[in-house]
Amino acid sequence: MAMTTAALERQIRSKKSFLCIGLDTDPMRIPDFLHGEADPIFAFNKAIIDATHHLCVAYKPNTAFYEACGTAGWQALEKTIAYLNQEYPGHFTIADAKRGDIGNTASRYAEAFFTQLDFDALTVAPYMGRDSVEPFLEFEGRFTILLALTSNQGAFDFQTLSLEGQALYLQVLRKSLEYRHAERLMYVVGATKAEFLSEIRQIVPDHFLLIPGVGAQGGSLEEVCRYGMNKQVGLLVNSSRGIIYASNGPDFARAAAESAAAMQRQMAALLGN
Amino acid sequence: MAMTTAALERQIRSKKSFLCIGLDTDPMRIPDFLHGEADPIFAFNKAIIDATHHLCVAYKPNTAFYEACGTAGWQALEKTIAYLNQEYPGHFTIADAKRGDIGNTASRYAEAFFTQLDFDALTVAPYMGRDSVEPFLEFEGRFTILLALTSNQGAFDFQTLSLEGQALYLQVLRKSLEYRHAERLMYVVGATKAEFLSEIRQIVPDHFLLIPGVGAQGGSLEEVCRYGMNKQVGLLVNSSRGIIYASNGPDFARAAAESAAAMQRQMAALLGN
Repeated sequence: MAMTTAALERQIRSKKSFLCIGLDTDPMRIPDFLHGEADPIFAFNKAIIDATHHLCVAYKPNTAFYEACGTAGWQALEKTIAYLNQEYPGHFTIADAKRGDIGNTASRYAEAFFTQLDFDALTVAPYMGRDSVEPFLEFEGRFTILLALTSNQGAFDFQTLSLEGQALYLQVLRKSLEYRHAERLMYVVGATKAEFLSEIRQIVPDHFLLIPGVGAQGGSLEEVCRYGMNKQVGLLVNSSRGIIYASNGPDFARAAAESAAAMQRQMAALLGN
Repeated sequence: MAMTTAALERQIRSKKSFLCIGLDTDPMRIPDFLHGEADPIFAFNKAIIDATHHLCVAYKPNTAFYEACGTAGWQALEKTIAYLNQEYPGHFTIADAKRGDIGNTASRYAEAFFTQLDFDALTVAPYMGRDSVEPFLEFEGRFTILLALTSNQGAFDFQTLSLEGQALYLQVLRKSLEYRHAERLMYVVGATKAEFLSEIRQIVPDHFLLIPGVGAQGGSLEEVCRYGMNKQVGLLVNSSRGIIYASNGPDFARAAAESAAAMQRQMAALLGN
């Protein structure tokens, strides 16, 4: 697949939703009865996707959860993205892998996630600088979602400290705009610091932002929209555990849909304003 | 497996080598005739390991190269580490994965690499701060190799800039010493900047340093030792392409051994001084 931000915006307007559902699928947390399936992780994801696809515009598997299951996990990831691309092709698919390495290695990761697995987007860490990010940006129709300000406590260890007169995460934004094909960038910005969004929007007014940390990590959707929304909407708000683990009984998929629908209704109201 | 730094030092003294061989195995670069094997990537790694194990103390597969091959690649990685642990148990094994994510996700990566795959060590990116690193440090007998100063040009984008009065990479070193179980840390320091090593050793005199960038990336082994060696030796110098791709004919394993032996001889001389 390959998708433009204009196509993503159309999906958002049509569904009245900028929800991204995080498929952080942990075999220890899925309903017991699914362990009778040949591939319990994929069976869980398929049920969640089938129940929620009309309420969200994006899905974001976090690769850590799949890697923790070895080859079986990697297979479940392959099946999940193939299922999404075949059955629900309008969705924006994000591999939350937070990769970052030197040029020739970055090219291999890009190959893994964009070509082999066929994700629309990949999260990437900025620490190693330009030549660790540009190999991802070479892929037309794909997006590189650079970590700027994350939603965890450790974000205050380095990201918010002053690097040559400006917070490191703002320097990351500013420098990344000079990268070749910067128009293929998006940014991770944690919702626990919604007030930071206005500063961020001064530097990157037009890019999409992927916002984790609404829900389980405690951010406010209304504040995110007030400070972060742009003309193209420009937001993907992620929720993982709050949706996919809404219940761990036989009704888990319906409970996930209800939780997603509650967020979608809030989003519809905020888009209407 | 699980290994102490004292055991690692004993291996280094006994083999007169602190060489780490990077298994950045690319199906496009291995000898053609190996593509007749059931698992060409593993067949290549096995031949390289069999030919070089007496010359090095560590092996470091870079996960990107395996992920780029999908499930088959992941299986080859599993087979490679299992082969190392079974046949050559004294070697220090490093998954060069450069992971970094929030706490519950970091735990899944630690599970993947330490418990499932049974690596001794994993490279980790520092950008997300303390709570993204400490979950790795909880594993007794395992080592977390934090990126400090990398060997690529992009290292000068952020790492060497002044963060609150001191270079970001030095702040990473300093702060990481406050992490719980900091004694389980090692650091990646690029050899292209060997003169930086004396500053680094002022902050982390006792930790092991993993040094990429000798060989293909151009650093000097002698300078690395002059500025970086400590009482325990404290160095693992990595070479990947210069060894594993020394030839791509039928003699590839012997050529790799010759290239590794040349480095080992230099190391023996430097250890003798």
